[in-house]
Amino acid sequence: MQAVFFEGNRTFRVGESVAVEPEPGQVQIQVAFCGICGTDLHLFHGAMAHRLTLPHVMGHEMSGTITALGSGVTGWKAGDRVTVRPLDPCGQCPACAAGHSHICHNLKFIGIDTPGALQGNWTVPAHTLHRLPDSLALREGAMVEPVAVACHDVRMSDLKEGEFAAVIGGGPIGILVALVAQARGARVVMAEVNAFRLQLARDLGIDAINPLETDLPQLVNERTGGAGADVVFEVSGSQAGADTMTKLPRTRGRIVVVAIYGEAPKVDLFRFFWRELKLSGARVYEPEDFELAIELASAGRLPLTKLITDVLPLAGLEEAMHRMEGGGACMKILVSCTD
Amino acid sequence: MQAVFFEGNRTFRVGESVAVEPEPGQVQIQVAFCGICGTDLHLFHGAMAHRLTLPHVMGHEMSGTITALGSGVTGWKAGDRVTVRPLDPCGQCPACAAGHSHICHNLKFIGIDTPGALQGNWTVPAHTLHRLPDSLALREGAMVEPVAVACHDVRMSDLKEGEFAAVIGGGPIGILVALVAQARGARVVMAEVNAFRLQLARDLGIDAINPLETDLPQLVNERTGGAGADVVFEVSGSQAGADTMTKLPRTRGRIVVVAIYGEAPKVDLFRFFWRELKLSGARVYEPEDFELAIELASAGRLPLTKLITDVLPLAGLEEAMHRMEGGGACMKILVSCTD
Repeated sequence: MQAVFFEGNRTFRVGESVAVEPEPGQVQIQVAFCGICGTDLHLFHGAMAHRLTLPHVMGHEMSGTITALGSGVTGWKAGDRVTVRPLDPCGQCPACAAGHSHICHNLKFIGIDTPGALQGNWTVPAHTLHRLPDSLALREGAMVEPVAVACHDVRMSDLKEGEFAAVIGGGPIGILVALVAQARGARVVMAEVNAFRLQLARDLGIDAINPLETDLPQLVNERTGGAGADVVFEVSGSQAGADTMTKLPRTRGRIVVVAIYGEAPKVDLFRFFWRELKLSGARVYEPEDFELAIELASAGRLPLTKLITDVLPLAGLEEAMHRMEGGGACMKILVSCTD
Repeated sequence: MQAVFFEGNRTFRVGESVAVEPEPGQVQIQVAFCGICGTDLHLFHGAMAHRLTLPHVMGHEMSGTITALGSGVTGWKAGDRVTVRPLDPCGQCPACAAGHSHICHNLKFIGIDTPGALQGNWTVPAHTLHRLPDSLALREGAMVEPVAVACHDVRMSDLKEGEFAAVIGGGPIGILVALVAQARGARVVMAEVNAFRLQLARDLGIDAINPLETDLPQLVNERTGGAGADVVFEVSGSQAGADTMTKLPRTRGRIVVVAIYGEAPKVDLFRFFWRELKLSGARVYEPEDFELAIELASAGRLPLTKLITDVLPLAGLEEAMHRMEGGGACMKILVSCTD
């Protein structure tokens, strides 16, 4: 088995994957596929360096098969097909006490704060496992984690069937948010400036527009009888997105901030006052989001295979990072971890 | 009877109040007292000039007695003691259709878009009336409108008994928000930099601190076992307030933007993501907020008389504006409209 090690300074090295024997409460997994997340790209660029122990194995969007169990693990056996919800909360802090352990004050994100899945063998706590049904191919199984992000975002928005949602930003998460919102019965319009992403979104059945060519607030008003959108998902992380998100909602409409902002943008708080808008931040997922993601994926309700534009070997990770940062013709890139 | 007319260019003139005969559905009121709102000060400074027909009579925080009724007005009679909820929605727009008529897309704010209460006689639609109980003095009756603002803000925050609330800004609305939150059973800390306001807040039983001297986020963490505030009310309208509001809440804590921002501040959207914070804008009030305000005021649960620092005649309005813009030793200034 092999692993791909991040050595800092935009450099990866492929080497031997050290199989870690599972301790009590842990399982060892043979990783089939692992998707590359925008967060991994940020790590590649040097972000969150204080959280990494170099050399670091990235990766947290995965599918695989259990190979060994530590003592005390029940409900699982070798051969089970699984994905991992890569969160390890402390269980002690005020957030955990309030039932918000997914955003624990001391949260360990598995794959950032601990080694990740871009290797042949991966050992994680058993409490992170979710079962993949036989009907779900392992390639699509590696998409469950980002789908769970989208399920969480949509759940936090309290979106109802028949409501109108606008999605700002059409990367993998923006597209999945649009698809999950549509699967929940919402009408959706998406804004994206990248021509490849725009076309792919349209191919997936999303009503996607380029906001540099189409007046999005005017379009939303036309589609909603002058009321405005019920829900807006801000997935772009840009000042333009922050400017647009307050122009779209109806009175008491809901904005969900999905994007991770590197610096604080200007936000039109007057508009919040004027229309009594609501805004929620949404981060990662809770177990029920994984369950819904698996249900939607295994029922074939999301065109996940079309989102996977490339499947590369472990040695292809550095090339994948270059393609992602180029903003070109790729959407979700998977790495095949067991060749 | 007299009126005080705003003639633009920071100038008032006292003249004869023209008694307007009530049309069908309207009532004529003899105005007892009228409070001066921060919005009136903005009008004095030239804001919203396009909405005013000069000379303009300001004023919308009032108490008085009905003197005449137009045809078709039922449930009211001459002599009834009343206050006015100064909103006149169109009844036709998407906001009205959605049940949000208090933030109607075409809302007429009585006292801005139409003549206000700083005169002896005032004629308004009967649908704006709320009855003042005999137990409530007319001076305090003129405080019902700003108390209703605070009741709305607290209601929009979904504040529960025993929760911890932080109020940023201790002007009349900030203090009333703190008092209403306390009346609803919350623990409250308020931040205010003005020494007069700080002392008055303390005299009213509010735990008020100067955030330039006390580290407010640290204090809130100490008071909440490291969790953070359940609710934050941003009533300052400043960049410092916008910076502070995201530092105080617990995971999934709620921020209510009460302040009216003249320009868009920078807002830490990363913190919204990180702690899954929620933010709501809150504007004016709905009928139930007036009813609660009257209930709290008439039950003596709010020290309203201590908030009234001055009662001036109509001719004193210009002086009052100068005192308010000076930020000195005044809180709520009332004008006696029928001398």
